[in-house]
Amino acid sequence: MKEPPSLFKGVLVPALTPFHPDLSVNRPAFLEHCRWLLEQGVAGLAVFGTTGEANSLSVEERIELLEFLVDSGIPTERLMPGTGTCALPDNVRLTRHAVALGCAGVLMLPPFYYKDVSDEGLYAAYAEVIQQVGSEALRLYLYHIPPIARVPISLGLIGRLIKGFPDTVVGIKDSSGDWNNTRDLLREFPGFAVFSGSENFLLATLRGGGAGCITATGNVNPAGICRVFENREGPGADELQAVATRVRDVFQAFPLIPGLKQQMSRFTEDPDWRNVRPPLIRMAEEAAEMLHERLWRVGFEMRRERG
Amino acid sequence: MKEPPSLFKGVLVPALTPFHPDLSVNRPAFLEHCRWLLEQGVAGLAVFGTTGEANSLSVEERIELLEFLVDSGIPTERLMPGTGTCALPDNVRLTRHAVALGCAGVLMLPPFYYKDVSDEGLYAAYAEVIQQVGSEALRLYLYHIPPIARVPISLGLIGRLIKGFPDTVVGIKDSSGDWNNTRDLLREFPGFAVFSGSENFLLATLRGGGAGCITATGNVNPAGICRVFENREGPGADELQAVATRVRDVFQAFPLIPGLKQQMSRFTEDPDWRNVRPPLIRMAEEAAEMLHERLWRVGFEMRRERG
Repeated sequence: MKEPPSLFKGVLVPALTPFHPDLSVNRPAFLEHCRWLLEQGVAGLAVFGTTGEANSLSVEERIELLEFLVDSGIPTERLMPGTGTCALPDNVRLTRHAVALGCAGVLMLPPFYYKDVSDEGLYAAYAEVIQQVGSEALRLYLYHIPPIARVPISLGLIGRLIKGFPDTVVGIKDSSGDWNNTRDLLREFPGFAVFSGSENFLLATLRGGGAGCITATGNVNPAGICRVFENREGPGADELQAVATRVRDVFQAFPLIPGLKQQMSRFTEDPDWRNVRPPLIRMAEEAAEMLHERLWRVGFEMRRERG
Repeated sequence: MKEPPSLFKGVLVPALTPFHPDLSVNRPAFLEHCRWLLEQGVAGLAVFGTTGEANSLSVEERIELLEFLVDSGIPTERLMPGTGTCALPDNVRLTRHAVALGCAGVLMLPPFYYKDVSDEGLYAAYAEVIQQVGSEALRLYLYHIPPIARVPISLGLIGRLIKGFPDTVVGIKDSSGDWNNTRDLLREFPGFAVFSGSENFLLATLRGGGAGCITATGNVNPAGICRVFENREGPGADELQAVATRVRDVFQAFPLIPGLKQQMSRFTEDPDWRNVRPPLIRMAEEAAEMLHERLWRVGFEMRRERG
């Protein structure tokens, strides 16, 4: 029997990366956070994404940290680390390492330094990594996040990659923030594992045949978002979606990563959780109060619901 | 006597990085190219810039390659390697290494993954690197290239950095392509070493009190651009500028890095010089012919003029 092309379905979380005051990674806090997310019911951890400040970490830091998670018992079938970088050798090294550890997938940014590059060049970039990694175990999810990477992954490029590497290029995270793009992906590529980059589109994505969402706010509202997925075919699905969306909308009015870390700091009572690496900056006290008040108004407070 | 804040003046070249067919760096060709540029009269080599595809190289490759150049006799007082990366630890490591080798300066991109970040965050990023490197020998040139990095360095940020680190933050490469910005830099920060990112603005930059240019097309037209600098106060300056500008304008109508490498390939009779790392792609034959014809029409052919 052939393995399914994508093993992931449901709500994945791009885990935040906590830092000590000297900006080194706080490993125990990172592990504790990953464990907590899994306890709350998330399907997987897309560690080393934009939300995890992965591009502010060195290749060595990412490799060591992933090994630490696996050595600490985080199941590899729940891990989809980010491995996309500007530089081909780094991209190959991180991807090969994730595959060797047994991670069920990798989430791969396009090389994002040069802008206005051709689909031919982006195809060559992905193809070169796939060929150099050279493993049948590789399951690659494309990471489309034009507001930040400023290097979009077009429908034409996706079609070409699926055709060229049907057993490897198995899905995409669509962080365009544009539902029309997600809808086009669902229509154009049935069977391809489409994840929305925001829980606001979770139900719509699932109803369109998609796989789920990979969402930053899953760091603070994992159970609330998982409830949408679990009840997707029930009568209360739309109401659960509306509740989750209200929470997301509050966060989106603030700098997202500092805001999420601020909430983690409040939840864990650890002020160090607020630390970010530059060029991000910690949320100021005034903004933190405003964020907390607005979350309170929509009835949201971080809590330990399961586990 | 206090050392001058900037040791560089004139025409610097962001040297192209040649690759073997397997995309590994061709070290002998790189060294030969750097030597040739110095023979042609350029003031310095801004290796590992955008033109040098530095962000397509790993940190290790950059470190080994810089050591190779220095070990091979390229004078460190002529070297201004690029050391800016997305990740703070990489940025610190590359900068520390360049300073330890004795390089007269470094050219530093802002961390370029996150977009729409605050000046406060960018200030923190530069300040953190400077403090972690902790060397009085560091001479830092800011690298403003908004068309590619998509993270601009504002006048306000520059003013703050000069004030905070007057002996360290000594100059800037302005690759905005916007003369108004270069003019504002020259007016706002007298004594700061302002380099235009294109030879088209070389004479105007010098006349405004600037230091020179750091220009991609210097890879193929070093002597022609140096002539503008050397004759900047002579009666023929404007005509020499016009000649250099005509050549630049031809290249700017084509993908710049593949076009420059195409010319290097023709000049050295080495087809491997055309290789680029993805996401860039080699110039197609048809475009190469068109480029060559247009260069011929403006009277330009690469030649060994000195040395």
